Amino acid sequence: MTIVTVTPNPALDVTYLVAALRPGQMHRVHSVASRPGGKGINVARVLHRLGVPVLVTGLVGGPDGTALRAGLYELGIDDQLVDADIATRRTVTVVENGSGAATLLNEPGPVLDADQWDRLATRVTDLLRADAEVVTFSGSLPPGVPPTALADLASTVTGTGVPALVDTSGPALTAVAQAAAHRPTDGAAGRLVLKPNAEELAEVTGLSEPRRAAANLRATTGATVVVSLGPDGLLAATPEGIWSARLPEPLSGNPTGAGDSVVAALAMGIHNSLSWPETLRSACAVSAATVLAPVAGEYEPAEYRRLRHAVDIEEVTL
Amino acid sequence: MTIVTVTPNPALDVTYLVAALRPGQMHRVHSVASRPGGKGINVARVLHRLGVPVLVTGLVGGPDGTALRAGLYELGIDDQLVDADIATRRTVTVVENGSGAATLLNEPGPVLDADQWDRLATRVTDLLRADAEVVTFSGSLPPGVPPTALADLASTVTGTGVPALVDTSGPALTAVAQAAAHRPTDGAAGRLVLKPNAEELAEVTGLSEPRRAAANLRATTGATVVVSLGPDGLLAATPEGIWSARLPEPLSGNPTGAGDSVVAALAMGIHNSLSWPETLRSACAVSAATVLAPVAGEYEPAEYRRLRHAVDIEEVTL
Repeated sequence: MTIVTVTPNPALDVTYLVAALRPGQMHRVHSVASRPGGKGINVARVLHRLGVPVLVTGLVGGPDGTALRAGLYELGIDDQLVDADIATRRTVTVVENGSGAATLLNEPGPVLDADQWDRLATRVTDLLRADAEVVTFSGSLPPGVPPTALADLASTVTGTGVPALVDTSGPALTAVAQAAAHRPTDGAAGRLVLKPNAEELAEVTGLSEPRRAAANLRATTGATVVVSLGPDGLLAATPEGIWSARLPEPLSGNPTGAGDSVVAALAMGIHNSLSWPETLRSACAVSAATVLAPVAGEYEPAEYRRLRHAVDIEEVTL
Repeated sequence: MTIVTVTPNPALDVTYLVAALRPGQMHRVHSVASRPGGKGINVARVLHRLGVPVLVTGLVGGPDGTALRAGLYELGIDDQLVDADIATRRTVTVVENGSGAATLLNEPGPVLDADQWDRLATRVTDLLRADAEVVTFSGSLPPGVPPTALADLASTVTGTGVPALVDTSGPALTAVAQAAAHRPTDGAAGRLVLKPNAEELAEVTGLSEPRRAAANLRATTGATVVVSLGPDGLLAATPEGIWSARLPEPLSGNPTGAGDSVVAALAMGIHNSLSWPETLRSACAVSAATVLAPVAGEYEPAEYRRLRHAVDIEEVTL
């Protein structure tokens, strides 16, 4: 049994090191590095480091798609990516040598037609027939894909009895929530996990207070709702009650990738049949270890184990 | 007979359109465009637009090298680029949607070994045996190539009786000037044209006053020296005396590529056997038309013809 992470819009993440970024000026780039990117691929990287079986899928193409696959192979992460007649996008992160400040430039990605998206949906269905035990969906949809396409695919997953973990925003998140709300009694919605941040949660519910908003989203959709609150940790409306997981002292560091670490730990919790409070403990600790790591999206396993003991888990009442 | 432009370190120029560039933030890139780049390729683009026969050479490789060649083919510009086992670099220009402000990020380019540089030198020599009538060298040297390598190649060109036009800076410009200074009496130096800007000229001569510096560089090297002075036009120490070419009113616009337009017009002047004052008139006008063009490095032929009449040419005394 394996966890499958779906990245609808994967990227080759390129990092440029410059002395200092000055808008309107010319910059000599001191070094160029690239690695596989896109939120679902980051989730897979964390799971692989946690020692949990994982494989990635998504649509790739062109030379940057080839580079992305080569990077996964080097990392030892299995891929079931679908080759399509598209040019995989890049993200460029400009890191300033002194301050370490990072400026991100995210290309929109190739415009997909319905046929290309169908090929990805077919691959996910094939993996469900094989040994997928949890499927995660992370990040934005590529241009040309309607928000309902993600909702349909998540419903296909939960409809076959497999938990689906969705970390997206805007119209795609709304579409997933609405699809779950329209069939709350079939049991499938109970296998849906949504992981918005505070802003995304407020947008989809229209409620600004996170506890009320999470409880509301759970009530209307039947999904488990895990909200990432940055330095305030995690808040989750689960079948086992509403829980908060946080560190006694907030950490400072680089929050890039912290949300992907949460998704990875939630998938691991399902994989290991942990209770929701124990799953949240891991998720809070991996996320915090990611914030502490000098390289965005990486973490030290020793740091994770240390932080796991420090996390405060509390049941929350409305 | 054709003009050959050599780009030691060509690039795929990528342009990102964003709303506004804010260091430390995440940006959605609204559109991505790419085209062949590197200063020598820009020179060829201007010459092609001027209707002058031109072909480009340099070392390319990898998928971005393929994209660069495809872009030249689309433009109708002949290439004699050498395929090498390298990955052609990119430059990324981030353009802000409202203000049009441009921020440039220039990748350093692949590190070349002596063998790879030799393949380029051989190609230039082959083109000299064919029908090269002027050879231009533009831009920085790739990492790993010593400054003397450019000086040697320029000497090979002038040694066969063909004019060489060099637009570079720093140690490479110093090496070219020193090589010319060490053999000022063989006639070859008379076929050398150097095109520094004011800052590069000051660096190579140690003199801050442009007229003195240009005359000094001509005296020590035997080369024709054409200095681009931005809004103050051009200053040239030539076999026909010292000349200034400028517009009565300075223009405002985008100076990117203006120096490459100067090099193109100087090569065209040699191609058309124009006098130096007439060559400088064209060079000043194409350069000004480039500054006025909304897209960096492009220009309107009608604008060029209009500006040509407006240029003031004056002989200068020290």
